[in-house]
Amino acid sequence: MKALVYHGPWNKSLDERPAPKLVDAGDAIVRVTRTTICGTDLHILKGDVPSCEPGRVLGHEGVGVVEQAGAAVAAFKPGDHVLISCISSCGKCEACRRGMYSHCATGGWILGNRIDGTQAEYVRIPHADTSLYRVPAGVEEEALVMLSDILPTGFECGVLNGRVQPGSTVAIVGAGPIGLAALLTAQFYSPAQIIMIDRDEHRLEVARSFGASACIDIARTEPVAEVLRLTDGAGVDCAMEAVGVPLTFELCESIIAAGGTIANIGVHGVKADLHLETLWDRNITITTRLVDTVSTPMLLKTVRAGRLDPKRLITHRFTLDHVLDAYETFGNAADSHALKVVIEVA
Amino acid sequence: MKALVYHGPWNKSLDERPAPKLVDAGDAIVRVTRTTICGTDLHILKGDVPSCEPGRVLGHEGVGVVEQAGAAVAAFKPGDHVLISCISSCGKCEACRRGMYSHCATGGWILGNRIDGTQAEYVRIPHADTSLYRVPAGVEEEALVMLSDILPTGFECGVLNGRVQPGSTVAIVGAGPIGLAALLTAQFYSPAQIIMIDRDEHRLEVARSFGASACIDIARTEPVAEVLRLTDGAGVDCAMEAVGVPLTFELCESIIAAGGTIANIGVHGVKADLHLETLWDRNITITTRLVDTVSTPMLLKTVRAGRLDPKRLITHRFTLDHVLDAYETFGNAADSHALKVVIEVA
Repeated sequence: MKALVYHGPWNKSLDERPAPKLVDAGDAIVRVTRTTICGTDLHILKGDVPSCEPGRVLGHEGVGVVEQAGAAVAAFKPGDHVLISCISSCGKCEACRRGMYSHCATGGWILGNRIDGTQAEYVRIPHADTSLYRVPAGVEEEALVMLSDILPTGFECGVLNGRVQPGSTVAIVGAGPIGLAALLTAQFYSPAQIIMIDRDEHRLEVARSFGASACIDIARTEPVAEVLRLTDGAGVDCAMEAVGVPLTFELCESIIAAGGTIANIGVHGVKADLHLETLWDRNITITTRLVDTVSTPMLLKTVRAGRLDPKRLITHRFTLDHVLDAYETFGNAADSHALKVVIEVA
Repeated sequence: MKALVYHGPWNKSLDERPAPKLVDAGDAIVRVTRTTICGTDLHILKGDVPSCEPGRVLGHEGVGVVEQAGAAVAAFKPGDHVLISCISSCGKCEACRRGMYSHCATGGWILGNRIDGTQAEYVRIPHADTSLYRVPAGVEEEALVMLSDILPTGFECGVLNGRVQPGSTVAIVGAGPIGLAALLTAQFYSPAQIIMIDRDEHRLEVARSFGASACIDIARTEPVAEVLRLTDGAGVDCAMEAVGVPLTFELCESIIAAGGTIANIGVHGVKADLHLETLWDRNITITTRLVDTVSTPMLLKTVRAGRLDPKRLITHRFTLDHVLDAYETFGNAADSHALKVVIEVA
């Protein structure tokens, strides 16, 4: 089969690889029909993710059709149309029983990281019963690729952890795909304001069209003063960090209201300064989270009901043969204006 | 009247001052019968609290008898035996209506800070209806002085924010009065382990007698490895920071389990390093809080029912005439082994 293979930092290629086989009785082999590229794949390619070793097929998002199911798989059979979760979970360990699937003892984020992933014609999915979701009738497949990772991540790490409430004020720092996914799903809860903060004019324009109540371009406007102005001096009830660098995290610390929540979504490579000297008495909460994908069934329902349109995040489409072009386009978003790129496999 | 007056950094004295008068219709004048000294008073004396100006009567804890009640005070009348909350709250502003009394628009921590406090024969209590509590019959007055601040602080900022649960594992970093208050109230929820961490042997001994399941003396034992050993490698579900320096906060970051909560109780003067590079995917929560004293009625019931014995925190007693000795004893806890010192006023 064809597969996008990581060969070490800055080195990848579209290779011919043997198709995966069932290993455990709970595995399924899925014929991938559509996949996409995540910011995390770019992190891997920079050499930032040591758990991902050279020779690995990348990708942890996708939709496909079950080709083979192991003897212990009860919920799916060959021919079933399925959404692949970026998180594999056994459903049986202590973490899974707490709903913290991201920390499953034999799963978590393993696809395209510790085991071969979805940017290929076929992929082996461990713990298939609890790591695949049936594609509902009448929902466009392409839209569902956004439900493997980016939408549950924005929703769980940002919106749910950030406790977005009717009437509350929200700031999202970073208007990339993940910040926009948080923006789309934050609107489920009818906040009074959603302020998007970025330095890319185009992304802020997109954010406005996606429902942001205000946009702050940090290249032109000092963001702390502007957020305070927009919130009568109080700061925001919820600040989501959707970039992954100290500057943006510390900006969240400067704009959070007393009693508010800073919900971290970004993947961080270095420490940030936590200004406890000003925050110790502010009754704030800070959360971190690797997406658990506990909300996938809920998000599927919102898509089906027309309350969420994930296709709005898709800007480009490629076939697997052109996956290197897809990486090029996704990696140069400032020029290409790419949000999510869909790769059509079959 | 006699009053302990702050005259600027490192400078205090027991002075003769005019007794306070009613200012607003919601005020009460309380004749103080017992008060105590808080670690925060020591912070003020170091010049760390700029909102507290020279000339201020210190103290924000105490029990007494209502001497005069303003025309708008409905819940109390002269002669009523009352507990003074360290937090004054109007009950009417947005913060109060959310139960975040610590951020009351015209209250919060003002006693012995922005207005004269309780280390005196008389004190003016604004918003008396919502800032005083009736002393229940049959409860020793001395014990209740511990309910003005230290017990609600340990309980709300540490135990409630830390989401201590039956069967959970807890570490409390700092076995001073506030850490011990958290230790006492954490036991309401039957955690599996409460590990106390300090460098003072005597305080750890006290912690053991108060119910700690393990004590780590950081002068002798590397605490991270020891906490991991005690928790089968997982770390603790709840780590409370009860000191207020970067080292102890960062220790909490190193011992927190996936899905756990770091509950800050300490008063911090400088920033700490937040290691997002290791914590971003650990599904943790960090909380800060100035005590709201929302739990005071609950704590009063636990004392009355014999489920909490606040007197265990009291090691020394002084009269107001000897308040300077009380400060000396409280400030030199390493030698005096003082926890809380009660000052008998009348």
